[in-house]
Amino acid sequence: MSDPQFERLTLIGIGLIGSSIAHVARERQLAKEIVISTRSQETLNRAEELGLGDRYYLDAAEAVEGADLVILCVPVGANGAIAQWIAPSLAPGAILTDVGSTKTSVVNDIRPHVPDGVHLIPGHPIAGTEHSGPDAGFSTLFENRWCILTPEAGTDETALEKLKEFWKACGSTVDIMDVQHHDLVLAIVSHLPQLIAYNIVGTADDLETVTKSEVIKYSASGFRDFTRLAASDPTMWRDICLNNKDAILEMLARFSEDLSALQRAIRWGDGDSLFQLFERTRGIRKSIIEAGQDTDAPNFGRPIGTSSADDGSQNS
Amino acid sequence: MSDPQFERLTLIGIGLIGSSIAHVARERQLAKEIVISTRSQETLNRAEELGLGDRYYLDAAEAVEGADLVILCVPVGANGAIAQWIAPSLAPGAILTDVGSTKTSVVNDIRPHVPDGVHLIPGHPIAGTEHSGPDAGFSTLFENRWCILTPEAGTDETALEKLKEFWKACGSTVDIMDVQHHDLVLAIVSHLPQLIAYNIVGTADDLETVTKSEVIKYSASGFRDFTRLAASDPTMWRDICLNNKDAILEMLARFSEDLSALQRAIRWGDGDSLFQLFERTRGIRKSIIEAGQDTDAPNFGRPIGTSSADDGSQNS
Repeated sequence: MSDPQFERLTLIGIGLIGSSIAHVARERQLAKEIVISTRSQETLNRAEELGLGDRYYLDAAEAVEGADLVILCVPVGANGAIAQWIAPSLAPGAILTDVGSTKTSVVNDIRPHVPDGVHLIPGHPIAGTEHSGPDAGFSTLFENRWCILTPEAGTDETALEKLKEFWKACGSTVDIMDVQHHDLVLAIVSHLPQLIAYNIVGTADDLETVTKSEVIKYSASGFRDFTRLAASDPTMWRDICLNNKDAILEMLARFSEDLSALQRAIRWGDGDSLFQLFERTRGIRKSIIEAGQDTDAPNFGRPIGTSSADDGSQNS
Repeated sequence: MSDPQFERLTLIGIGLIGSSIAHVARERQLAKEIVISTRSQETLNRAEELGLGDRYYLDAAEAVEGADLVILCVPVGANGAIAQWIAPSLAPGAILTDVGSTKTSVVNDIRPHVPDGVHLIPGHPIAGTEHSGPDAGFSTLFENRWCILTPEAGTDETALEKLKEFWKACGSTVDIMDVQHHDLVLAIVSHLPQLIAYNIVGTADDLETVTKSEVIKYSASGFRDFTRLAASDPTMWRDICLNNKDAILEMLARFSEDLSALQRAIRWGDGDSLFQLFERTRGIRKSIIEAGQDTDAPNFGRPIGTSSADDGSQNS
């Protein structure tokens, strides 16, 4: 096991994931120095107010100087331009990784710019919340979650080992996966659910016969579960859609086919088919709980009789 | 304000909703006596072990004798047969209500059997969890939730007032709504989300290219939110689909149209349309939280780094 500690960790982008890495790296001493760069002065100031790093730069190239670990924590669409920007300043031997939800595009966008001697190892921590920005991060976000790395053939073993230890020290279990397979897996476990959530909230918002206030009042009957995902960062999700198009379209097509069959069963009053589908989906829930990836507490363990007052106290 | 206390409350069906009513009625003394009937001997025994009522019957007709409040807590498809069974035994002046998620069908199925002098007032508490059965209930399920009543024209005002006070005493806020409108509202806030959840879990389960264990491992990236709903009682949901067909088909058609537009935007790389949709859905989430119908805590306030061990302690 190699030492998970780095000399200088540079985070490019300081949203939910970036700020969570900053918290956990500080708390567990995973880097002697944390350098933060983000493109907006306001966000950078906020990161400084929160004390997330040791040094702060608007200039990403300056920020990566001398860093032995650079993590890109920006919407995947921004990776190419940033890679081009920072490339000349990357230290020889540095590990360059990212946290994006699409990996084929990351390799395509970043790889051409990476100088020899810098270790590009694409990564993806499977963790998040619906909140975004530098205030949203917390040190336990990666606890008991998976982190997928998609190293190319010929990746330096020592660098790979060091990055694995870093993520383990953040609380995650590391999986190694092929880039293309990663994008297919994520299309079904993450991208499709996200799009379905956005879509259903949009459909409800457009109704003429049911008012918006009715949708809000009675949302505890199921709808509210979808609104959490639909509150996620729109730029991040736009970029994911544009960068994992083929896999997402494939999953959407399958979903729509299945939905047509379900619709047909309802139209023709086919109770047996409905029961069969509704019965078999229970098993997956059980497995997810057994795997420690969700809670079995009713309603995700939401505070009972959730009210605005409850929320206030929870967030303060 | 009338006294919410009844002499004898009979619950037909003792699943999540029935047992929750039993708990809250006992705790807040909303009935001097609680009588429970359910069709399976095993469930009835379990209800007795849990001490949910004062008397227990397999025979629903016997159970309703002398009751001044009878609540049907069974899947909506069972209402007609039960109404026919208990009708001759209902006490004059009794209030007969239900908790089903479809109301047009309830009126159609129950109304023909109700004797003169018995007050039929269909009802629907907008509350639940993904768990079912007599062990799933708890006294605060209805706290800060809405309960919709759909009285027909000419309903006795005193009876209606008394039932309203009962639900208020359970912790709910009561809304009065037209039957047809109820079914339309519920189709979008409850039935469509439920079907979408079942459908996406089915789609994931059918993939050949992504293994089931991968779906489970990486479910924290979005998918797991859907599996909660998809773990709900299949009989209940089959009956809802069969009994609110028209409204559900209408909502499914709208959802599918919107999904096609989204799919097209992805195929053609229309980032602006994607951003627009993803941006506007945030507002609804905010309103739901402000209305006290969900928590703003990240990930619904799930225990951080949820593991099987955490769950065990939560449920014990």
